[in-house]
Amino acid sequence: MLTLGIDPGLALTGWALIEGGGGRLVLSEAGYWRTPANQSEGPRLLALSKSMAELLQRARPQAVAVERLYFSRNVSTAMAVSQARGVLVCAVAQAGLTPFEYTPGQVKQAVSGAGAASKTQVARMVGLLLGVEPPRLDDVTDACAVAICHLNSTGLRAALIGARS
Amino acid sequence: MLTLGIDPGLALTGWALIEGGGGRLVLSEAGYWRTPANQSEGPRLLALSKSMAELLQRARPQAVAVERLYFSRNVSTAMAVSQARGVLVCAVAQAGLTPFEYTPGQVKQAVSGAGAASKTQVARMVGLLLGVEPPRLDDVTDACAVAICHLNSTGLRAALIGARS
Repeated sequence: MLTLGIDPGLALTGWALIEGGGGRLVLSEAGYWRTPANQSEGPRLLALSKSMAELLQRARPQAVAVERLYFSRNVSTAMAVSQARGVLVCAVAQAGLTPFEYTPGQVKQAVSGAGAASKTQVARMVGLLLGVEPPRLDDVTDACAVAICHLNSTGLRAALIGARS
Repeated sequence: MLTLGIDPGLALTGWALIEGGGGRLVLSEAGYWRTPANQSEGPRLLALSKSMAELLQRARPQAVAVERLYFSRNVSTAMAVSQARGVLVCAVAQAGLTPFEYTPGQVKQAVSGAGAASKTQVARMVGLLLGVEPPRLDDVTDACAVAICHLNSTGLRAALIGARS
């Protein structure tokens, strides 16, 4: 199942397409979208929306997993990220998909076995699970991690349903 | 100048179209969009985005003023409103317009002369300025108020430029 993982942000959004199934995870493609800080938020949000719509149309993932902002000490950062997240979630709905959401704790738990894992630990585990060098950008690592989190929990759900029937 | 005022929210977004110029303010049309609480956020944000795009295309306002979330005690409410706000601002940019932003304090100051005015005072002043009964919904009142705030500050700016030249 091709899953798109998204780590939302206004300045930088990371994305990763991961193919998963039968206990295997294969990184298909990953990248990020930057929006220029010297632009006003309207054009930045529009650029993000268009990039997301283009990727969804080109890659046609079967599932999309988006990291949920759990809390933030800085409310204005939380509000800026939420604006970007709203635009991305809207593009997913426009493509006829329902985004799956995971908190940072759930994502860390899924990839490293610990909800309070450090960024370095998460990056190392993402690299190991995908059999690649860990991505250089945290945002891309986090996008991989949220996709892995979704694929793992989907696999687990399917196994549980299989065991029950 | 036909100005669209927006009070953003996920559950309820208020909007108001006000024609202003030459010291007069005329309410052209106002309303609100509700999204059902039992739906997931993707379809709700998409519905909001579509309603906004349709209104912009139908009414063709020359300016759009959106209330800025200044702060919130409840971070999860702030994040939900910000997601809705992001989708609305994105639709404004898509229509080729740059949204003007005002804080709740600026809006209250503009319509009532006091940045800490109560909801009742704001509603009464909005009714007086537009020569209509105050709207029944706070969100529609606030949408009127942010449009009036923009029209007043634009008028002031034009008068200042006129006085200098």
